[in-house]
Amino acid sequence: MIIIMDPKTEIQNINKVQECIESNGLGVYSSRGESYLIIGVIGDSGKLDSNKLLRFDGVQKVLKVEEPFKKANRLFKPDDTIVDIEGKKIGGGNLGIIAGPCSVESEEQIIKIAKDIKAAGGNFLRGGAFKPRTSPYSFQGLELEGLELLKKAKKETGLPIVTEIMSTDYIDQFVDNVDVIQVGARNMQNFDLLKQLGKTNKPILLKRGLSATIEEWIMSAEYILAGGNENVILCERGIRTFETYTRNTLDLSAIPMVKRLSHLPVIVDPSHAGGYWYLVEPLAKAAIMAGADGLMIEVHNDPKNALSDGQQSIKPENFRALMDKIRVCAEIEGKIIK
Amino acid sequence: MIIIMDPKTEIQNINKVQECIESNGLGVYSSRGESYLIIGVIGDSGKLDSNKLLRFDGVQKVLKVEEPFKKANRLFKPDDTIVDIEGKKIGGGNLGIIAGPCSVESEEQIIKIAKDIKAAGGNFLRGGAFKPRTSPYSFQGLELEGLELLKKAKKETGLPIVTEIMSTDYIDQFVDNVDVIQVGARNMQNFDLLKQLGKTNKPILLKRGLSATIEEWIMSAEYILAGGNENVILCERGIRTFETYTRNTLDLSAIPMVKRLSHLPVIVDPSHAGGYWYLVEPLAKAAIMAGADGLMIEVHNDPKNALSDGQQSIKPENFRALMDKIRVCAEIEGKIIK
Amino acid sequence: MIIIMDPKTEIQNINKVQECIESNGLGVYSSRGESYLIIGVIGDSGKLDSNKLLRFDGVQKVLKVEEPFKKANRLFKPDDTIVDIEGKKIGGGNLGIIAGPCSVESEEQIIKIAKDIKAAGGNFLRGGAFKPRTSPYSFQGLELEGLELLKKAKKETGLPIVTEIMSTDYIDQFVDNVDVIQVGARNMQNFDLLKQLGKTNKPILLKRGLSATIEEWIMSAEYILAGGNENVILCERGIRTFETYTRNTLDLSAIPMVKRLSHLPVIVDPSHAGGYWYLVEPLAKAAIMAGADGLMIEVHNDPKNALSDGQQSIKPENFRALMDKIRVCAEIEGKIIK
Amino acid sequence: MIIIMDPKTEIQNINKVQECIESNGLGVYSSRGESYLIIGVIGDSGKLDSNKLLRFDGVQKVLKVEEPFKKANRLFKPDDTIVDIEGKKIGGGNLGIIAGPCSVESEEQIIKIAKDIKAAGGNFLRGGAFKPRTSPYSFQGLELEGLELLKKAKKETGLPIVTEIMSTDYIDQFVDNVDVIQVGARNMQNFDLLKQLGKTNKPILLKRGLSATIEEWIMSAEYILAGGNENVILCERGIRTFETYTRNTLDLSAIPMVKRLSHLPVIVDPSHAGGYWYLVEPLAKAAIMAGADGLMIEVHNDPKNALSDGQQSIKPENFRALMDKIRVCAEIEGKIIK
Repeated sequence: MIIIMDPKTEIQNINKVQECIESNGLGVYSSRGESYLIIGVIGDSGKLDSNKLLRFDGVQKVLKVEEPFKKANRLFKPDDTIVDIEGKKIGGGNLGIIAGPCSVESEEQIIKIAKDIKAAGGNFLRGGAFKPRTSPYSFQGLELEGLELLKKAKKETGLPIVTEIMSTDYIDQFVDNVDVIQVGARNMQNFDLLKQLGKTNKPILLKRGLSATIEEWIMSAEYILAGGNENVILCERGIRTFETYTRNTLDLSAIPMVKRLSHLPVIVDPSHAGGYWYLVEPLAKAAIMAGADGLMIEVHNDPKNALSDGQQSIKPENFRALMDKIRVCAEIEGKIIK
Repeated sequence: MIIIMDPKTEIQNINKVQECIESNGLGVYSSRGESYLIIGVIGDSGKLDSNKLLRFDGVQKVLKVEEPFKKANRLFKPDDTIVDIEGKKIGGGNLGIIAGPCSVESEEQIIKIAKDIKAAGGNFLRGGAFKPRTSPYSFQGLELEGLELLKKAKKETGLPIVTEIMSTDYIDQFVDNVDVIQVGARNMQNFDLLKQLGKTNKPILLKRGLSATIEEWIMSAEYILAGGNENVILCERGIRTFETYTRNTLDLSAIPMVKRLSHLPVIVDPSHAGGYWYLVEPLAKAAIMAGADGLMIEVHNDPKNALSDGQQSIKPENFRALMDKIRVCAEIEGKIIK
Repeated sequence: MIIIMDPKTEIQNINKVQECIESNGLGVYSSRGESYLIIGVIGDSGKLDSNKLLRFDGVQKVLKVEEPFKKANRLFKPDDTIVDIEGKKIGGGNLGIIAGPCSVESEEQIIKIAKDIKAAGGNFLRGGAFKPRTSPYSFQGLELEGLELLKKAKKETGLPIVTEIMSTDYIDQFVDNVDVIQVGARNMQNFDLLKQLGKTNKPILLKRGLSATIEEWIMSAEYILAGGNENVILCERGIRTFETYTRNTLDLSAIPMVKRLSHLPVIVDPSHAGGYWYLVEPLAKAAIMAGADGLMIEVHNDPKNALSDGQQSIKPENFRALMDKIRVCAEIEGKIIK
Repeated sequence: MIIIMDPKTEIQNINKVQECIESNGLGVYSSRGESYLIIGVIGDSGKLDSNKLLRFDGVQKVLKVEEPFKKANRLFKPDDTIVDIEGKKIGGGNLGIIAGPCSVESEEQIIKIAKDIKAAGGNFLRGGAFKPRTSPYSFQGLELEGLELLKKAKKETGLPIVTEIMSTDYIDQFVDNVDVIQVGARNMQNFDLLKQLGKTNKPILLKRGLSATIEEWIMSAEYILAGGNENVILCERGIRTFETYTRNTLDLSAIPMVKRLSHLPVIVDPSHAGGYWYLVEPLAKAAIMAGADGLMIEVHNDPKNALSDGQQSIKPENFRALMDKIRVCAEIEGKIIK
């Protein structure tokens, strides 16, 4: 952190800023000329609140130099994190292809789709049991019954389960029954939830919030890592912009950027990003070529009668065709799906 | 809801759409010409999922006609909702002026500021006990001890307390100790929290999410109303845009627009919106003239040493001066503060 | 400008950066410790391209300290600029109330509205002769004939004319016939147009682009000032965000922020910002209380039959009522309209 | 276009709306029930201003059904447009790989880079002669001298030239000397420029504005097509969002969406989108897999000393390596570069 001060400010103002920094256990260096006066912080300036420094007399600007994340920072852990879920891996050259319906609707539905996904080569099953819906009058999911159905589908296919948690009340059930716990975009900054998940050892799939910056997204992962849980997978699913032709704007630039900043794996959800089934294939292929460590794709055997998000789900036969293309992309990129 | 279909589509496709609508207990009308084919829904089309209809063959577009909110809709309750908190009112011509520090820091601090606010004419005390922070390494609030200190400040001054809840685990303590429970911007779509708050009878202050549309914001209020709690106050606090000179972009157009769409009171938080203490006065005055039912303002006796958000807090003497100006604005707008 | 370098970089990399800075006629200071290495620029670092410095080996970050605008910067000209148009002033405590139809449609129309505006107390007449329309198939304005009609309306009422220029081809006609030349939001970064307007001595009303940052907006003003024309009035008219209930999002925080950064007057266009006639009054009052130096308001005698933007125009009788309220706001703010 | 009216409105209000529609030469159908009243427009409702209709008494909403573009609409021209530039094609399975420096700097520079691009397999040469710069104090390009140098580079290599126009004053020189005239993001709604380019027969590369919706972007193409020039190539180059780690946010979802809506070719500029050289490769590959008809890439032999945008330029050796990867992607997608 660097503090720019008015070069004409009185000496006691400079002293106050330095004292404030030192009282946080940090060192100070300063550099002064006719037209400049700079105070730099030595040590971990994450302990300092830049906003607070702005209130000192004579301070003109406070510039951050370091990234605020530590455990998630590639600087301090250069090697890719590989999350291992019952032998299936995500990160470090391993692609996780997570597919399934938006909502779990019935035993028959979820088992049928799970079998189709496995046959096509997907290696994880997704399905919503608890559903975050904008309207209180929309279908809210089968809840705990949905978890049971997912377990049955796992038993039939061996596919590990990925499903979203919406309340800290159910953490125990999720830890017991689910293989990857998903935190949805709307809960990305539900810090209470993040803290509690940090105390578990379950892999967490952390979706990017609709208006979250890359820094905020990684900082939310940092909450989980700081609690001791290092199994975090990030998921880009589109951000909110002014464009209305698509549901959200998929930010693929974030993939190489996050991978540069952090060692955590990053996957992409082309279904929620685009919002239309016909955008899934081009965006899925593009995501792999941009460096994603996997995909999360909505597949439904009867999209017309899906209880949620039918317009963005593809059919099992389309998923099969898509997997063929994804395998080609994976090969070019030197990555494996297993 | 209106469904636009391809005028050349086969009759069975039209029939399938009509059956889907009717199976939801709704009526259908259709209108057909050479170059158009329209199916309209009669009844509460909130029961229908527009996305689902998009998957039917022959459907070109689905247009929403009604707003999706019901209990929050001014159409169905034309009169302003007035929230009464221990005799102090917000809405329907009554301004709530909620002021206090970002974080409760000590007994001395909160009591001193509370007295200053009361003396200046503020009618509610705010203060954070549980703090949502982007970084896990930042000060997270005094938590339950903070609630106790707020109660002491209330005992000294009589000012009702407004403070933020971050976890459903503490709902009982909040219901027992707090007068208005605040839901922060980051939890605006924490639907589990909203549902549980809907079952209490406490007034809820619902902040707008950083990227929430007006519709989504009112729909989150609808979650609380649908649960049976009609005491909801909305709070605009700036949305996220590309602009970086200010912390957020205060959306004052939302005030008259929300008041047209809904009967709920809407207040404005100029401190978080602008992010700098020198923006508080112009934005506070502007908010009242745009029709806001109140303000939420950060006041700190020693902003330089505030544990959070010092740069956007004003000092008690500035708050006193601001209150004089707010009273002038209130008078022009025919509103009262009591 | 401050360059943060890798403290472990080789000495020749540091030398190369310093040489690059010095070759631009600027001075250098550097400060080095175990964990930091900073190079600061002495002099006008606007001459340096920060992006270029990022390509030097060993450079980690380039931080800008100064604002990039000079002539528009309040630092170098602390007093408010007052633009004088035939004795009517905007800035420095003087409000410009510019009103009129979106498009000039006929002699009768523009003269009638001009008289109504004058009677109500507006001090400038607006009216589009050349219209920027999203569609090539929409009404494009009466063009030069429109300018003639505006002149007739000025002759009848004495109100100076404000109208938009869309092409450098017409600069001479605008200089001869128009009192304030408006640059529309879509042309805010039409640098060729800005340069040519900088060579005239006409007052320029520069609207903010739909996605222009405050810095870019002031830099566009800088283009005009750098050419020698110091009569620039900025106009905030709403920025583009994700919100769709309103046409744009009026950024009133920009008013106090721009006035802090620059000495130029800033007015507000509540008609384009909100997009609906019923938002004009609350936003107009709010703008004055936020510190605006004036307003630009669409008034049409027959909005239903307006050739453009009827939905956001108010009727002359509403404008009269609005002026009464604006006068009250102006008095509170200590400003005059003449 | 569909107009939703209050079902309880008086008959004369309905009549007035119908008369307004009919006076534009359009037909009307209406459909009325207890709880609904709909008026539909028969014919080309692009002639109607939806905003105007909103001002009629009894009108509740105006819903657009058709896209507003005609000549650019795939509905009316299902086959891909292929733009042919001296035998090199863009669109319909043909990729245009346009590469070169941000700015033309010298004869030596542009000829060297052109040769490198040709050797690597690029089929067009880009280079800015007129540069749109945020600051009036930045390098503005070599202007007409730059055009001459581009012509020399073309003579040496045979690569057709793509360069940006900033002023209608130079249209003749551009028509005479340039092979593809680029309209930059900041001029996307410089309608005067678009109209004049519509009267030429030169291929136009139309970049998307920083905050332009897909609809507005295609409507700007429509301006050129409506003038009679059918050789338009669209170019996605990133939109403006809240994210600051990358220069802009590349909107790859726009590629399949535009190709669905329009027959025009769409290429991608990964250099401006990401803003950093290390993002170019992943985004370039992703663009091809998302269906782009080509790429526009900044290549500079000495990025450190580039006069503009050095941080986002790649070196010729990196371009050569990138071309190898692009050829693999092209083959998978069944596209050719020639």
